[in-house]
Amino acid sequence: MVHNGIEYGDMQIIAEIYDLMHRVIGLDATDIAELFERWNEGRLGSFLTEVTARVLRVRDEKSGQPLVEMILDQAGQKGTGRWTARDAIDLGEPVPTLTAAVDARVLSSWKPLRSRAAALLTGPEARTGALSAADRRQMIKDLEAAFYASRVCAYLQGLRLIRVASDAFDWNVDLLRVTQVWKAGCIIRARLLDPIRAVLEQPDSVDGGSWEHLLLDARLAGPLVEAQAAWRRVVSDAALRGVPSPAIGASLSYFDGLRSSRLPQNLTQAQRDYFGAHTYRRVDDPSGAAVHTDWHDLT
Amino acid sequence: MVHNGIEYGDMQIIAEIYDLMHRVIGLDATDIAELFERWNEGRLGSFLTEVTARVLRVRDEKSGQPLVEMILDQAGQKGTGRWTARDAIDLGEPVPTLTAAVDARVLSSWKPLRSRAAALLTGPEARTGALSAADRRQMIKDLEAAFYASRVCAYLQGLRLIRVASDAFDWNVDLLRVTQVWKAGCIIRARLLDPIRAVLEQPDSVDGGSWEHLLLDARLAGPLVEAQAAWRRVVSDAALRGVPSPAIGASLSYFDGLRSSRLPQNLTQAQRDYFGAHTYRRVDDPSGAAVHTDWHDLT
Repeated sequence: MVHNGIEYGDMQIIAEIYDLMHRVIGLDATDIAELFERWNEGRLGSFLTEVTARVLRVRDEKSGQPLVEMILDQAGQKGTGRWTARDAIDLGEPVPTLTAAVDARVLSSWKPLRSRAAALLTGPEARTGALSAADRRQMIKDLEAAFYASRVCAYLQGLRLIRVASDAFDWNVDLLRVTQVWKAGCIIRARLLDPIRAVLEQPDSVDGGSWEHLLLDARLAGPLVEAQAAWRRVVSDAALRGVPSPAIGASLSYFDGLRSSRLPQNLTQAQRDYFGAHTYRRVDDPSGAAVHTDWHDLT
Repeated sequence: MVHNGIEYGDMQIIAEIYDLMHRVIGLDATDIAELFERWNEGRLGSFLTEVTARVLRVRDEKSGQPLVEMILDQAGQKGTGRWTARDAIDLGEPVPTLTAAVDARVLSSWKPLRSRAAALLTGPEARTGALSAADRRQMIKDLEAAFYASRVCAYLQGLRLIRVASDAFDWNVDLLRVTQVWKAGCIIRARLLDPIRAVLEQPDSVDGGSWEHLLLDARLAGPLVEAQAAWRRVVSDAALRGVPSPAIGASLSYFDGLRSSRLPQNLTQAQRDYFGAHTYRRVDDPSGAAVHTDWHDLT
């Protein structure tokens, strides 16, 4: 099931990359197929990268257009992505990229509503004119980095979910074996599983053996840290141009949440203690004692 | 329960606004309290806006610092936000802002992991120097708009969830009555419920009476369309500066998905038909007939 959840995430990331290439750069299906073919040779190589290139090459006999452009933008789902998202919630494990993919399919299914909404909710043009050759090259490089980094986040979210479930239910799942099965032949077989497997082979090297999150191994962290400037430009650009990129954006927020030693939930705790006396802990008390303040007397 | 889900979303949006003010502009708790007090007089007026200002004003007796800064950034949850997110998944209704808030609380609870991750996953500085007075004013105006627009999305996601559940289980819920109860006194009582209630009072005016999404009423759509340039700048800026803004970002993606007459799920359908023969529909066939292509013969 989690394999399918990751598949949803991977497909949604690909859809967003395709959308940005198409709507922002103005590339046609053949141009995009060529890029996916080229990417398939490198670290983005995978069954889904290859399938994307293949389907983009097919012409519609009736219209002569790329067949993909004659297909209604209304995705179905059989339920496995949704189950993954639900089980993740039950287990208290964030899989934001996978959940964003499930939501994106639902929004796509609201086709008649979206057509009416488009007339009322006007916004920026995705394409503001032809890009210079240099800008175009830069944006394609940026999209490659955003694809890679978002995808690693999707896979690691899914793998952590399996691990958390395994711990919760005493399943003793061997993730190395899981990824071996995935590599052997399935929809998410991907070259990026190789560095993940290298880390899984030496779990003691991750974060002093704590193994809490695979991203705390330098072999996986390094490429994401390197990709991040490009990744950030893609999220920023998509937001400014009005092109929805929920899965790429959710991956970046996940990465940024994880790497924030300080998050603003101190305010959340203050609010909760104010209206519900839920207590909080202090930064200067290592004992972690729960404290309550009678805020009403002080404000 | 959905009330609590919206509360999670609202609190997370506030936390992100606070974080951006603090980390990017460099405002201290008192400055931020003043802004929330001022905002509380306008369209952002609400119990939570007021509570935010109040808690930000309280000083810690021990350190003399703002008490909020002495609170550990590790949020608890009692489960109601999580239940809302799960029920939304079961009902096939996207509530991305609410789900992002649940995930953000979980990430905040990973405090020791985040502290270690911060050393490895280095990134941009949130604050790149003092802003000019004009840039500072602009950013504060942008944050007000992003707060308003993201918040409306959170409330509308929750209200649609109640409506979908009411339809599914024949509950006949009167949303006007629900919002009246909320207005009368609860954690999410907010002035922004007034325009929502005005729309609910004349449901026939929404989208030709179809009433599928309240955002298809010009009274709710107008302010969001107007806020969007500022809203986009906030999401873009947060991404570039490495400050996670999952709830504000998810709201914008929801808005952009809804207003996209064309989404890239045509590619998703092509992929699904390629590897699973799940069929697709054609844009030029209003009958909506399911079509399957034997892609393997053509690629």
